[in-house]
Amino acid sequence: MWGIIATWRMAHEGILAAKELLVKERSAGDAVETAIKCVEDYPYYKSVGYGGLPNEEGVLEMDAAFMDGDTFAIGAVAGIVDIKNPISVARKLSKEKFNSFRVGAGATRYAQAEGFEQKEMLTERAKKIWEKRVEEVAKHQLDPYDGHDTVGVVALDELSSMAAGTSSSGLFMKKSGRVGDSPLSGSGFYVDSEIGGAAATGLGEDLMKGCLSYEIVRLMGSGYSPQDACDQAVYGFSEKLKKRYGKAGAFSLIAMNKEGQWGVATNVEFTFSVATKETEPTIFIAHPGENQTTVIEPITQEWLDAYEKRIKAPI
Amino acid sequence: MWGIIATWRMAHEGILAAKELLVKERSAGDAVETAIKCVEDYPYYKSVGYGGLPNEEGVLEMDAAFMDGDTFAIGAVAGIVDIKNPISVARKLSKEKFNSFRVGAGATRYAQAEGFEQKEMLTERAKKIWEKRVEEVAKHQLDPYDGHDTVGVVALDELSSMAAGTSSSGLFMKKSGRVGDSPLSGSGFYVDSEIGGAAATGLGEDLMKGCLSYEIVRLMGSGYSPQDACDQAVYGFSEKLKKRYGKAGAFSLIAMNKEGQWGVATNVEFTFSVATKETEPTIFIAHPGENQTTVIEPITQEWLDAYEKRIKAPI
Repeated sequence: MWGIIATWRMAHEGILAAKELLVKERSAGDAVETAIKCVEDYPYYKSVGYGGLPNEEGVLEMDAAFMDGDTFAIGAVAGIVDIKNPISVARKLSKEKFNSFRVGAGATRYAQAEGFEQKEMLTERAKKIWEKRVEEVAKHQLDPYDGHDTVGVVALDELSSMAAGTSSSGLFMKKSGRVGDSPLSGSGFYVDSEIGGAAATGLGEDLMKGCLSYEIVRLMGSGYSPQDACDQAVYGFSEKLKKRYGKAGAFSLIAMNKEGQWGVATNVEFTFSVATKETEPTIFIAHPGENQTTVIEPITQEWLDAYEKRIKAPI
Repeated sequence: MWGIIATWRMAHEGILAAKELLVKERSAGDAVETAIKCVEDYPYYKSVGYGGLPNEEGVLEMDAAFMDGDTFAIGAVAGIVDIKNPISVARKLSKEKFNSFRVGAGATRYAQAEGFEQKEMLTERAKKIWEKRVEEVAKHQLDPYDGHDTVGVVALDELSSMAAGTSSSGLFMKKSGRVGDSPLSGSGFYVDSEIGGAAATGLGEDLMKGCLSYEIVRLMGSGYSPQDACDQAVYGFSEKLKKRYGKAGAFSLIAMNKEGQWGVATNVEFTFSVATKETEPTIFIAHPGENQTTVIEPITQEWLDAYEKRIKAPI
């Protein structure tokens, strides 16, 4: 069996590319890296890699992580700047016994020294969006944009190995050095090849309050299906957070187990892409349903057309 | 009931200071911050705050986190430089809905802008130790020092609120921008006032593979005593890591539940300090025992004398 699942419609082309590897018995790690690189490279996705929106100061700082489900090896970067593929840096770091999570200037210098491709990652389009936003904020005293579009991927290969990865430019207009859940083990991602894996997208500040990726994997390990594990962890914690913190930010989780079964749960409208040996690559849309369940439907052409128009609209 | 537990003998003076607050019905948050500030301020502790040992480049980069067990609010910093009390910065950040985890230059600039006390944190003594080490490494091709002395604290106050915090200068001779588990929710710390809290010290790269602080709190929430929760999580994961990753770094966890009962587990020799309404502040020493248990004994005067001599020995 093989399978791969990823957050957001933006991951779909990456899923198509990763599928080509998985059918050829390439590793789950290669599939995760390939899928995420596609998203990082595409200029119209505003929350990951090239074309991502910058922080308050106009600097595009990126976070990424990679986890090997066979060994639990983790590599991660946060606040890395002008490196074409943060996910590849994270994957390389996962092979290190020490110093495998690197932040800020140290992360960027590591990537440069290791020969990772450097690239001016702030596009003209992203800069324009930022300039417009700076003006609006000056006028209206706004909150930062509650963007929550991390790409998170979980993959299973024919040899029963699993891997997970994330990549994000974080909140638009974030403060310099702000880090969300994406590079944090247990919050942004977690994977155990003997059980399954999970990854998150959403308000990182709230996701790290719940360690939901770890919790979903744990629930799958105690016998829950991926869908039941996602429902229980996400809706349970969302309720708890409202009661205890007063409010729960948007968050959405994906999961796949070692049999290639998958699930998602979300407290907002959420799209995702999935492919397995038994199912053609498909984009779905999910909403929170009644009684802590999730409503999942195939995406409509109408939705896709509107999305395409939206991401390429003139600034 | 009130109680407080902290990693390592170095935390003991901080526990004494925090106890004075807890008996006066001050908050668990105040107790955690006070205890950790004592450790950050003491020049002879080489792995936390002032006097901490620097990274490979001779720069002292510090990590810290604070979590409020009532609301799950978290604040954290990583790679912060020349700020007297990173724990106080983390606590302040925990009050922010967005941008509450800050790394690198962004973390330092935030602390400066908010008026936190700035201080040259690298002592002459730490610099000497670093210079000596640089020479040795050049001669012998050594691994980085496997130091694992984060201060982690969990406290319970008379109003049944709980808090947790950590502070660390990380691995001696770490690479620039390296971050361990200390500022990472679920790995370095976790606390839920309706259950209990836990904190970790050890090889951060391995601790984040297991999310052990979260797991210990979860086990306490499902009915385990703090000691049984620590034993199960720590020894279970240590075995799993040896099997799957080939090796498990040193790690030690502390926990306290909402009744003020406590527990610890460790795969190395480990000292800690604890005080509750019913028990005078005491330093204990722990070792891994047989069949996934922990042997805990009061510290001897001989051990304390040798420790005092060691930390103040001429370089």
